[in-house]
Amino acid sequence: MEHPENDDLYRGLKVNKGVADVPTVNPYLKKKQRREFTPSEFVEGILKGNITILSQAVTLVESSKYEHQQVAQEIIEKCLPHAGKSVRIGITGVPGAGKSTSIDVFGMHLIKEGRKLAVLAIDPSSERSKGSILGDKTRMEALSREKDAFIRPSPSAGSLGGVARKTRETIVLCEAAGFDTVFVETVGVGQSETAVHSMVDFFLLIQLAGTGDELQGIKRGIMEMADGIIINKADGDNIDKAKLAATQFKNALHLFPPAESGWFPKVLTYSGYYNIGIKEIWDMVGEYMEFTKKNGYFNYKRNEQAKYWMYESINDTLRETFYHNPAVEGMLGQTEQQVLNNEISSFVAAKRMMDLFLENLSKK
Amino acid sequence: MEHPENDDLYRGLKVNKGVADVPTVNPYLKKKQRREFTPSEFVEGILKGNITILSQAVTLVESSKYEHQQVAQEIIEKCLPHAGKSVRIGITGVPGAGKSTSIDVFGMHLIKEGRKLAVLAIDPSSERSKGSILGDKTRMEALSREKDAFIRPSPSAGSLGGVARKTRETIVLCEAAGFDTVFVETVGVGQSETAVHSMVDFFLLIQLAGTGDELQGIKRGIMEMADGIIINKADGDNIDKAKLAATQFKNALHLFPPAESGWFPKVLTYSGYYNIGIKEIWDMVGEYMEFTKKNGYFNYKRNEQAKYWMYESINDTLRETFYHNPAVEGMLGQTEQQVLNNEISSFVAAKRMMDLFLENLSKK
Repeated sequence: MEHPENDDLYRGLKVNKGVADVPTVNPYLKKKQRREFTPSEFVEGILKGNITILSQAVTLVESSKYEHQQVAQEIIEKCLPHAGKSVRIGITGVPGAGKSTSIDVFGMHLIKEGRKLAVLAIDPSSERSKGSILGDKTRMEALSREKDAFIRPSPSAGSLGGVARKTRETIVLCEAAGFDTVFVETVGVGQSETAVHSMVDFFLLIQLAGTGDELQGIKRGIMEMADGIIINKADGDNIDKAKLAATQFKNALHLFPPAESGWFPKVLTYSGYYNIGIKEIWDMVGEYMEFTKKNGYFNYKRNEQAKYWMYESINDTLRETFYHNPAVEGMLGQTEQQVLNNEISSFVAAKRMMDLFLENLSKK
Repeated sequence: MEHPENDDLYRGLKVNKGVADVPTVNPYLKKKQRREFTPSEFVEGILKGNITILSQAVTLVESSKYEHQQVAQEIIEKCLPHAGKSVRIGITGVPGAGKSTSIDVFGMHLIKEGRKLAVLAIDPSSERSKGSILGDKTRMEALSREKDAFIRPSPSAGSLGGVARKTRETIVLCEAAGFDTVFVETVGVGQSETAVHSMVDFFLLIQLAGTGDELQGIKRGIMEMADGIIINKADGDNIDKAKLAATQFKNALHLFPPAESGWFPKVLTYSGYYNIGIKEIWDMVGEYMEFTKKNGYFNYKRNEQAKYWMYESINDTLRETFYHNPAVEGMLGQTEQQVLNNEISSFVAAKRMMDLFLENLSKK
């Protein structure tokens, strides 16, 4: 591996841009200073735990430019042997459940225990609801000031599959950079929870006490994914309500079939605002890790997840190639209308589109 | 449309086979009698409600032979304008919940009300658990003797996608043949429930009273799909237990977010064996139909389902073409292993497989 000078390692894109703005600079020097890192330089910086370089590598992962992707994939490949050692926790909950405060307090608890925490997010709709998810680091006031915390908003562009892949690859880079705990946050109202569930070890659902109205935003099926449900705002006058909610959730969980892991989901109450019951949440995660490492589920799940993402990537790429094929694009709307009019069966429609696709490909 | 002679309409494949076995038969006559129906003849027979011809058409739908599929698709296309008028009900529940008895009794109630009932099934695993699902018509003793009931076991061959498609196309044929109610049965332990949910108007879950052990077989997520949960064996000493279970389920359902339909799932108790509470189940379905037809959800859902199946068919065909491509097949195992060994990322693996596929296609 090539050993770049230290200077190079700490010369980020932002810095270079500043330098480039100086008009009297020597053109040769300007060019030299603007030189991008080689993948090996990126990897060395990441392995040293350099946050600026990690950030830039994540930017490449998130970029849709072909040449950026080429570099990003080389970096990821070199980081893979150093990845995999963190505890990955998915965190979801409706807006209003106090997700940011909870992550801030929960995260600070971990930092004080000497852990290094990366907080990532999946929110394919962040274009629409800009700023709703990690858009503003100040939502996690305490964490954002910690050097051992790396907070990164959701990649905003692209399909859920694309965004999920980028987040998953960012986990690899963060782990290689020495982060031993990774949070992946979702808003809990979209399709993203399955994606998050497929990239974390532990899935945490934040709920509120209430009559059921508060649940309206949570998508069906999410409760069944949870390894732990935590009821926020168990403080002051609200303690009894929160405890009642916990009992209701516990009863409801008993009606579900047991999870594949053999783990029975726990329900805890806490207060993010008053910092009550946070240690117990982390203890629960620890208990789960011990339990699943002992019964072999942990490794089994990680392997299944790797395979899952390979086939997801294949199927994503396959669909993208198909639906962006000009012959297909030109006929799709019309064919869909014929199906809705009961003129052709969905199978005949599919076959026609497929024939168009293959014919168009073989012409190339 | 060509009008075949009546004789032809009632000359099924089975009969022909018998005739063909007679050695002294005139070869010309034999050939003539063995002549297969034209698609138009099939359609005419189906529209007249001829069960033998309907059965044979379903056999073509289920066949994996190319020429059978050609004919089947033509029949379906011609039946489509006559389809869509039935109430489609999905029924699931673990083995032991008394599904067959329940369907038998529930079905007989409908027959006595003057309805025509088709009972279909989705069970891609029927190869494995042969006879477990509708394999034996005698499981529905009363229904199987009724001329207004058409009972058809699950197509056994192929992937879930393939089996589901065949069942969905069989619904079209049954509706064109005048069946105004369609049951689609699943065993409730596999992947089939989502497929069934996507082809029916009402999704019914059969449960048993109990301490939770009975629920172990039901797959996670199924409860959240149900428009109605019915607790069987509410008879004799078991009545109180069944009522308690109903209350527990009702409470649990309150923790779920409301369904898109605006309908709040009902929980009923009944006894399939003693024929108690059956009318109430049908009343619930009727109420649901009225509710969703009034608020527009019924038509909306039917349209969404048609689109869903078109895209499912496309994606199925696409995956099949890809994974059966010789270049892909040859490299897939090795690439998967590289992903598991952390040698390449899942995305790089996907890209390599995709490049192989496109290269192989363009060579043809």
